Amino acid sequence: MATTVEKLEMMGRAARAAARKLAYLNTEIKNRALHNVADALVRDQDAILAANAEDIAAGRAAGLSEALLDRLLLTPERLRSLAGDVRAVAALPDPVGEIFDMRILPNGLKVGKKRVPLGVIGAIYESRPNVTVDIACLCLKSGNACILRGGREALNTNRALASLLAREFTAAGVPEGAVQFVDDPDRALVARMLRMREYIDLLVPRGGADLIRYVAENATMPVVTGGIGVCHTYVDEAADLDKAVRIVYNAKVRRPSICNALDTLLVHRAIAPTFLPRVAEAWLKAGVEMRCDETSLGILRAAGFEAGVVPAEPDDFGREFLALRAAVRVVDSLSEAIEHIERYGSGHSEAIVTENYSAAMRFLDEVDAAAVYVNASTQFTDGGQFGLGAEVGISTQKFHARGPMGLKELTSYKWIILGDGHVRP
Amino acid sequence: MATTVEKLEMMGRAARAAARKLAYLNTEIKNRALHNVADALVRDQDAILAANAEDIAAGRAAGLSEALLDRLLLTPERLRSLAGDVRAVAALPDPVGEIFDMRILPNGLKVGKKRVPLGVIGAIYESRPNVTVDIACLCLKSGNACILRGGREALNTNRALASLLAREFTAAGVPEGAVQFVDDPDRALVARMLRMREYIDLLVPRGGADLIRYVAENATMPVVTGGIGVCHTYVDEAADLDKAVRIVYNAKVRRPSICNALDTLLVHRAIAPTFLPRVAEAWLKAGVEMRCDETSLGILRAAGFEAGVVPAEPDDFGREFLALRAAVRVVDSLSEAIEHIERYGSGHSEAIVTENYSAAMRFLDEVDAAAVYVNASTQFTDGGQFGLGAEVGISTQKFHARGPMGLKELTSYKWIILGDGHVRP
Repeated sequence: MATTVEKLEMMGRAARAAARKLAYLNTEIKNRALHNVADALVRDQDAILAANAEDIAAGRAAGLSEALLDRLLLTPERLRSLAGDVRAVAALPDPVGEIFDMRILPNGLKVGKKRVPLGVIGAIYESRPNVTVDIACLCLKSGNACILRGGREALNTNRALASLLAREFTAAGVPEGAVQFVDDPDRALVARMLRMREYIDLLVPRGGADLIRYVAENATMPVVTGGIGVCHTYVDEAADLDKAVRIVYNAKVRRPSICNALDTLLVHRAIAPTFLPRVAEAWLKAGVEMRCDETSLGILRAAGFEAGVVPAEPDDFGREFLALRAAVRVVDSLSEAIEHIERYGSGHSEAIVTENYSAAMRFLDEVDAAAVYVNASTQFTDGGQFGLGAEVGISTQKFHARGPMGLKELTSYKWIILGDGHVRP
Repeated sequence: MATTVEKLEMMGRAARAAARKLAYLNTEIKNRALHNVADALVRDQDAILAANAEDIAAGRAAGLSEALLDRLLLTPERLRSLAGDVRAVAALPDPVGEIFDMRILPNGLKVGKKRVPLGVIGAIYESRPNVTVDIACLCLKSGNACILRGGREALNTNRALASLLAREFTAAGVPEGAVQFVDDPDRALVARMLRMREYIDLLVPRGGADLIRYVAENATMPVVTGGIGVCHTYVDEAADLDKAVRIVYNAKVRRPSICNALDTLLVHRAIAPTFLPRVAEAWLKAGVEMRCDETSLGILRAAGFEAGVVPAEPDDFGREFLALRAAVRVVDSLSEAIEHIERYGSGHSEAIVTENYSAAMRFLDEVDAAAVYVNASTQFTDGGQFGLGAEVGISTQKFHARGPMGLKELTSYKWIILGDGHVRP
């Protein structure tokens, strides 16, 4: 019997062979496969939920936190919602084959670009089993094969989902090997995947900071890193304070546990005495703990705030809280705010609230992040919100793709040159 | 005194600091710097040529080949031509700051992308000293800082050019540190550069296959690999044979030593007896050696060709000749040609010669290479020819940029989001 490493090698070869055919697979076949998957997620829910119940029981026995168990849990409702996401991917335009930047050169040669898939996408991810379906479906629609390696704690659920995906893809006429699942919790296999440069064109790690760092530092093929967001909102002296309170509240409270949530509030000194008590009132009611620098602490104490307003620890600036907690600092100028963001930001999502045109323009120019906002909540950083339809993740690197990565970001292009016997002088 | 490794670290920090300012440096300043450089290349030619003469003398003493010495050599004419290239970069539109894909979402939020530089580009290259000027100028125009590491044999020339670049950049108002040169031939420094992930955003190796492989396998930051071209031209049974002879002749003979030159000629069996003697006549006159598979050898021998027509060695297919030499094979079908290219090609430039619409479309769809041609010579694969104005190299990878890399390919983007108090529901 083949060892798991040999099996991984076979999966790589099979994915590469499938990718060649997927590259020019008919859009109708891809969409039919996606609708098949959506139907099957609802129709076969008993089998999936049974597999999920095993993972939940094992997780509970192993002492997983309630938060982790909730991320792991599937319900009939969550499966219906997942099926809806799959149908949404089917409804998106097929990015493959688009011809763009086509020009006729002075010599009559026609030169342009044709969009093509990247090839084979490897995904290494943790806990949430819906990632299995999301990534497989985005890869199929963009003409890529994929090799999926989910977390140990979701093994039974992922196994059930992966077998459903493979079955429904094949039934629609998608080449065998288009979606493959590493059905072995051995961690040594991750290290092996990172060396499979000849079979995997792009690796997407999704999970905690440790996983992402490990993959980025050890992979031999390109990696898209991201998902870590230390996000700032700077309230300028020229801010409309009503908008500012609304934006800051939303950026923290709407969903505090996602990567685009506000972590640090920067406030211009001139408006801090008016603005900070208004934010504190709103935030404290929602249960947000404010970790304040000396100046903001002084202002809030003077305004009578006690509970929920505490001095910041040194490492609170530059920290991704993922919780109802925010660092707060008063700055003397826009320059100081920009320097703070440059020093502590993770290049994810950064916002300014201001009515001043030049301040807004300067912030847009000088802040170096995947998403830079004027007068809006950073919680909009999301493939769906930005009109991409869906995302495989949010990149905080500059190479290839930045910010939410949708179908187009899973593609490359080739130059096509149409001549009529042209030779170069 | 600082060790060289410490100096490298300081260069990294200085480049990073310069990159921050370069990101939004005025186009006029960038263009003024480029014109200064062009002027100085001609005005200060004596100093540059003297430095170059030292390298040439040392190279000759060390027994470098005449071909290598010629690559190393600068002349007043070559400097004038280099100055012309620099002025051409000045004339190109500035890619930085372009706002594109801007949309207004249903909620009124304006979402789009703004083009930004990558940051710091590292270049590791061999012999030809004009690369020092080319890359520094393309980086400046695209708003990137650069750290240059040229070949040991061109050290004096590169030192002179780098000091000219730094001086003229600074005189025009470009931030200090925008262009830096690793002024030490110690090879250990290359290994150190490959680990400077915090300071170098993209590494561009230019040179032989060994250098490129070493950099790709050992760099911790993104790398653009390329420059190795095993290029095929397939002459289909439906080819116009006049065009085919012209194209095949040009693809090999115009400049045999560049990466987009033809290496293997594939000919459909149906037209091989008519076509091969015509190509042989043209090629042999130009001194091309034909390394033939059994079938093509039989056809050419039967037609009376002897000298310059030899049996192919097993590894002639898949070989980059960079010389007046070509492998020749007869195939039974378009499918066989595509399979041959898939197996032996390096993903650089591939061509079909045919008048058949479906054959042309299938070749464009199924051949996976940076540049795919119908009825034209592969020697067109070049940034200048494709309308990019100039290139830092030709990428044969799919990630980020494929084919000739010009100014735009040295950039990334950030999402910009313009709201009016928008919060996410």
